[in-house]
Amino acid sequence: MTTHSPAGGVAGPVREVRLDRYPGAEGVTERDFAVFPVTAPASPGPGEALVALRRLGMNAGLASRIGGPDTAYGPGVRLGDVPGSDAVVEVVASRDPALRPGDLAVGKVPWRTRSVLPASALRKLPPDAADLGLESFLTVLGHVGFTAWTGLVRVGRVREGETVFVSGAAGGVGSCAVQFARARGARVIGSAGSARKLALLTGVLGAEAAFDHHEGPAADALRAAAPGGIDLFFDNVGGEQLEAALEVLRFRGRAVLCGAASQYARREVRGPANYVRMIYQELTVRGFTVTAHEELRPAFEEEVGALVRDGVVRGVHTTAEGFDAVPAAFAGTLAGRGLGRTIVSVD
Amino acid sequence: MTTHSPAGGVAGPVREVRLDRYPGAEGVTERDFAVFPVTAPASPGPGEALVALRRLGMNAGLASRIGGPDTAYGPGVRLGDVPGSDAVVEVVASRDPALRPGDLAVGKVPWRTRSVLPASALRKLPPDAADLGLESFLTVLGHVGFTAWTGLVRVGRVREGETVFVSGAAGGVGSCAVQFARARGARVIGSAGSARKLALLTGVLGAEAAFDHHEGPAADALRAAAPGGIDLFFDNVGGEQLEAALEVLRFRGRAVLCGAASQYARREVRGPANYVRMIYQELTVRGFTVTAHEELRPAFEEEVGALVRDGVVRGVHTTAEGFDAVPAAFAGTLAGRGLGRTIVSVD
Repeated sequence: MTTHSPAGGVAGPVREVRLDRYPGAEGVTERDFAVFPVTAPASPGPGEALVALRRLGMNAGLASRIGGPDTAYGPGVRLGDVPGSDAVVEVVASRDPALRPGDLAVGKVPWRTRSVLPASALRKLPPDAADLGLESFLTVLGHVGFTAWTGLVRVGRVREGETVFVSGAAGGVGSCAVQFARARGARVIGSAGSARKLALLTGVLGAEAAFDHHEGPAADALRAAAPGGIDLFFDNVGGEQLEAALEVLRFRGRAVLCGAASQYARREVRGPANYVRMIYQELTVRGFTVTAHEELRPAFEEEVGALVRDGVVRGVHTTAEGFDAVPAAFAGTLAGRGLGRTIVSVD
Repeated sequence: MTTHSPAGGVAGPVREVRLDRYPGAEGVTERDFAVFPVTAPASPGPGEALVALRRLGMNAGLASRIGGPDTAYGPGVRLGDVPGSDAVVEVVASRDPALRPGDLAVGKVPWRTRSVLPASALRKLPPDAADLGLESFLTVLGHVGFTAWTGLVRVGRVREGETVFVSGAAGGVGSCAVQFARARGARVIGSAGSARKLALLTGVLGAEAAFDHHEGPAADALRAAAPGGIDLFFDNVGGEQLEAALEVLRFRGRAVLCGAASQYARREVRGPANYVRMIYQELTVRGFTVTAHEELRPAFEEEVGALVRDGVVRGVHTTAEGFDAVPAAFAGTLAGRGLGRTIVSVD
């Protein structure tokens, strides 16, 4: 129902997604959000650009901010608020010399088909962006790739020959972490929630072993996959899988906390009941927030850009078609549906 | 009822404390242990010494090994087993050239009035031991002092001007950690379980603030004492106090897990339900086990030995009289009775 303007932007009415009600006891569902038509944004002011949404990435972590506190990743989301996440946009009009109509850029943008944004909030894509695929800038070369790299390389200090366990390994960040760990010479064990995801991990992404966390105790599966223990845990999930990792980490092992997808929708978070093992095993657990590590981006782009262009690592994503699919795509992300990151295509 | 032999050892029948039943639902009590007369140990073999117990230190952490797993601190304790802990002993007879009758030494020994031990398991006290007080070698100059110093200085990397929160601050390790942090120029907040302990912390040990964890939510008390947040947490207690610290730690704050006294006797350990804050606040939590850091002992003894001899820091202990008091002294340690470390005197 949309038509492409000559500049490549999306014509048709401007729409946005709002939090329409607070989630009930069943957790966040797509019915908690609704799409609303809105008046077209005003023309950009000096230093601003009018952009059209092209690809919108979904983040499970947003769920923890619905009705919740502000965090480093963004403000708490209240009734009527328009959430935001990272996206590829196309510049429609610009009053900043760095951006011209037709330019493609990434940035954190509201869930709205067109927005006026400060040019400083957008980073232009490189000239070979179309060859690499726009989605790459929301996966392996984007925010989630940068997150995986920062957590694995800088916070977790992964070393060649180590055994690394990645939870949620077939998700957006997880699928990057698995590949980056492999590229750095580590053995990787991944967990995921379906046979199709396990096949992705061992058949495509290079994991040595993978297990389905729905099938029996995670600690048993992890110990079977790593009888000698693990050196490093990269956690996207929390809950039982964090406990499993604390159980199987070697003496002086490290855990990097990136996310806690299993806990975001829970009223009572499950803290690791075996945390006392951290004392006897001298474990180190470090949380991190990639937005606090912007100074590392050039090193990330250099290393991972080369890996992507050489075909050593690849972005993994699942596409949802059309802006109206955003609520379902977000709920699907929380439910663990889809391989890699879920991206809404708004072309 | 005991008489001193000319060599200073204890005559009378040899006795030991055994685990006499497994703790019930009410947790560990003194009735779980019993004192038994045993036949006197055989003469020492080559490289061994016969020692008489003089001062026996109590460790809450032992409770976690009763019916439980082996840890770096010692084996699991089964029915009929004789627990062990660090003690000052007097050499009665020796077949090792490093030890002579009358020498005083520290080591980890069974809860028995006389034992034959490998000389290599004993470290002779310095010539001024009597002036410093034998108890010092079980507190500030001993295993618990070494524990506090290692956790605070090497694991936690305390820095001048930082705000440090010590839980269980009036206990054996805690009272050392408070003083060492002060000596390194940190502001210290301590928690403890009685008015007398709070008075010790602020009136004697140099804490800037102290609160009783029985009186209202620990997070509220901690925030009131440190409105700007804390930089470092030294945890001896776990449970609610660990959660309070995670809540009040500043961005990139650190927590050092030394013990979890509130959890040792529980069947279901309380994992920190707010651990997700570690992600947003980039917190680092590290567990440690002092037995894995023996190489640091010379640095500890140099720094802390000077502080003790200069009167800057002091050992804090509570004495229980006589070997038969061991079960009650151990139960009292778990219940948080007594100031500083509880030490059984067997003179």
